[in-house]
Amino acid sequence: MVIRDKIFSTITDVFKRHGAVTIDTPVFELREVLTGKYGEDSKLIYDLADQGGEICSLRYDLTVPFARWLAMNPTIQSIKRYHIAKVYRRDQPAMTKGRMREFYQCDFDIAGTYDPMLPDAEILRITTEILDNLDLGNYTIKINHRKILDGLFQVCGVPIDKIRSISSAVDKLDKATWEDVRREMTEEKELDPEVADRIGGYVQKKGGRELLDELLEDENLTSNEAFASGLKDMGLLFDYLEVLHVMPKLSFDLSLARGLDYYTGIIYEVVTEASAPPAGKSAKLRRAPKSDDPDADRSSDDSIGIGSIAAGGRYDELVGMFANSAKGRVPCVGISFGVDRIFSITKARMTGEVRGNEVEVYVMAFGGKGFTGLLKERMEVCRILWDAGVKAEFMYKNKPKLPHQFAGAEKNGVPFAVVLGEDELKEGKVKIKEMGLPEGHPEKNGVDINMDGLVAQIRKRLAKKEGGAGAVGIEGNLRSVALEEKTPEV
Amino acid sequence: MVIRDKIFSTITDVFKRHGAVTIDTPVFELREVLTGKYGEDSKLIYDLADQGGEICSLRYDLTVPFARWLAMNPTIQSIKRYHIAKVYRRDQPAMTKGRMREFYQCDFDIAGTYDPMLPDAEILRITTEILDNLDLGNYTIKINHRKILDGLFQVCGVPIDKIRSISSAVDKLDKATWEDVRREMTEEKELDPEVADRIGGYVQKKGGRELLDELLEDENLTSNEAFASGLKDMGLLFDYLEVLHVMPKLSFDLSLARGLDYYTGIIYEVVTEASAPPAGKSAKLRRAPKSDDPDADRSSDDSIGIGSIAAGGRYDELVGMFANSAKGRVPCVGISFGVDRIFSITKARMTGEVRGNEVEVYVMAFGGKGFTGLLKERMEVCRILWDAGVKAEFMYKNKPKLPHQFAGAEKNGVPFAVVLGEDELKEGKVKIKEMGLPEGHPEKNGVDINMDGLVAQIRKRLAKKEGGAGAVGIEGNLRSVALEEKTPEV
Repeated sequence: MVIRDKIFSTITDVFKRHGAVTIDTPVFELREVLTGKYGEDSKLIYDLADQGGEICSLRYDLTVPFARWLAMNPTIQSIKRYHIAKVYRRDQPAMTKGRMREFYQCDFDIAGTYDPMLPDAEILRITTEILDNLDLGNYTIKINHRKILDGLFQVCGVPIDKIRSISSAVDKLDKATWEDVRREMTEEKELDPEVADRIGGYVQKKGGRELLDELLEDENLTSNEAFASGLKDMGLLFDYLEVLHVMPKLSFDLSLARGLDYYTGIIYEVVTEASAPPAGKSAKLRRAPKSDDPDADRSSDDSIGIGSIAAGGRYDELVGMFANSAKGRVPCVGISFGVDRIFSITKARMTGEVRGNEVEVYVMAFGGKGFTGLLKERMEVCRILWDAGVKAEFMYKNKPKLPHQFAGAEKNGVPFAVVLGEDELKEGKVKIKEMGLPEGHPEKNGVDINMDGLVAQIRKRLAKKEGGAGAVGIEGNLRSVALEEKTPEV
Repeated sequence: MVIRDKIFSTITDVFKRHGAVTIDTPVFELREVLTGKYGEDSKLIYDLADQGGEICSLRYDLTVPFARWLAMNPTIQSIKRYHIAKVYRRDQPAMTKGRMREFYQCDFDIAGTYDPMLPDAEILRITTEILDNLDLGNYTIKINHRKILDGLFQVCGVPIDKIRSISSAVDKLDKATWEDVRREMTEEKELDPEVADRIGGYVQKKGGRELLDELLEDENLTSNEAFASGLKDMGLLFDYLEVLHVMPKLSFDLSLARGLDYYTGIIYEVVTEASAPPAGKSAKLRRAPKSDDPDADRSSDDSIGIGSIAAGGRYDELVGMFANSAKGRVPCVGISFGVDRIFSITKARMTGEVRGNEVEVYVMAFGGKGFTGLLKERMEVCRILWDAGVKAEFMYKNKPKLPHQFAGAEKNGVPFAVVLGEDELKEGKVKIKEMGLPEGHPEKNGVDINMDGLVAQIRKRLAKKEGGAGAVGIEGNLRSVALEEKTPEV
């Protein structure tokens, strides 16, 4: 059973609050569209069989299909879009025993040419609104800039052809010690130890605006064009994020690198206390266990980053890769939320039980000798409640026993019972009984009311109960519940 | 742009009102699970490439995966489930030029062993609630019973091996004349003309309870065991549907056959006036044009039936086909809604425009010589509105011109503008302006209010506007809007 519906609606509400619309791109893409976008993970792409027609694969994420869609629709020069959908990645066949992998991604992107850092600031504001509303506990948005990182590596003397691999080593600093990372750089990647030490002097720094000010005074760095340009962006962004009340959540982290090649500007990753890994873990654990672990957490999705619940950045060149004309080169900034990871954290934080369904009233009947079951009467009461929009259910049995009906209501935590009795019906009365009242409560045995006041009475009691449920915390919010199956367990 | 969100939420609300939960089964199924379930349409199944592991295909509908899931989870002996998701069908490759086909289905099923016809009655009640809420105009639920049809064919003297093909000929009576159908039976399918005429005497009948009573008096028919048993079910169902106020929408139609083999009890199909075909069309048009027509309506989905917007029936044996033990043989009844067809009808019925997004307030600024753009002030006002849950937007420009800002608001039909001016801000005031007021309206030029009353004033005005929008009809409901792309247009 899941709380996924609630997570989706929370996220969607925030996206809409910021003027986003949803775009639904197909689950298929031409194979060539996906080729070469995911580095060595391209082997995880699911291909469709060649049954004639064009050669297609299943989408690997939602960003590349969006970029392809934008490139093919050059009349759309600006858009705020969100998309919640499944993406597909196949684990290495030798190890998987055919296990399938599909999971949800939830993306928000702003495309268009605007004055600098404005959409970037709004994306981060949206991120805080979503995380505050999801109530996942403390979280930090780690932020860096591709140009700051590239400039830094250039200044430290990293050879051009080693920048990507050194960058990925540095990215491990959230889980590994500097000694481990330094060893990887100098031994595995044969970087000059002096260069490594120069890098080490910078990438272990993190902080807020004071770090920005510190870097601004380092003429060695600011003389590098890329670095200076990245720092200028970051300063402007911080100004905006102060107005938007996002700064307290931010950590400017020079070790954040993010794997995907297509980022061109700011990059960010959200870590919650719940999702942060134990400190000092070896860099070897940086990548999640893959298919050899049947319980591998699918949210340990490389595009989001291990231990994080959301990630993204600016990608100004990706749309252009699919475009035929200059018009199709729209710059973008976006974020992807790891719904499965958010789900795990929410579930772990939950107190109380999640209801099986949302039924508000269970309509039941009882009687003595010669009891007919009052089936049509139960149906009629349900019809009246349904007409009024009340969620109601009755037992699919001609002559049900009263204890069985109460058990049916209790099983799903239905808050109210409407009980029909032959004598009471003759007088035009039914009984409303709130479930789970303590012994001695004045209404423990229910209240007889006139049939024609039923809907009003139920509504009044539901509203009262709803108001009270607020105090229960997370449980009160979890009204939408779903069953979920992730892999064919065959 | 679509209204799909609104359709989904209407349908989901009704499902939940009846105690349903959602189950999300994977988009993949083992190929063998799908094989042999869809007759000659099996060629439309999408296969995944053999990249190692087990051989899989994409789901063709939502019913077979649900049945497979139930069979694999024998602890679940009863459930009301809904599922809204995409299914995949490949048109014939020679004709398609590689065109992909994915579309939404929206299914509701009740699984479990209950007293007869109770879940069946509730499914039809749910159907009327959904159609009434969707406001698609007049509609009819055509209903028949597999056993009535089989018994009828037996009594008329159809050879056992011809029953399915004669059944499919009869099913065409909604679009073809009896003469056409008779010709198909006797010429193409070599049925004895006398047998065909006997069938013709029955299958052109349709009506309500009076037809049931008429058939009950036909001893020729009622002496057939299957027929009598089907008729008994139908009588009980009608009793329940009277209580549930569904009867006025029902047409007991002896020509309704439904293609899929797995139905074992009642079968039904919903036709709206908007979706009904022109009368007297040739039987040759019974199947929709397939892939040779690039604009082929994808909702002309065989599992729903051409011209209908929803269809389903009872399938008591399907789950058992996947079960290892007797416990896994759960009887089911369900319905599938054709979202794409419903969407087309909704769109055609719409008056007024659909908004591009849901933004409620556009925050803008103006000034004279030396105007700074008031960017941070606009951001701050947005932040205050977002904090209050108001949907708000500002222009991503340092110094935007006022006409451009108004155009931005107008483009998406944003109902209110908040206009900042340097002098007003100094006095702690902002202007609220309702968009689109007629000349001469006392508030045409906006109202200055105190900044600290902004949220309250906006909420008051939005509530008033919302209340008024009710009268606009369908437009007032269409607050959720999406862009949709159905096929890769490459």
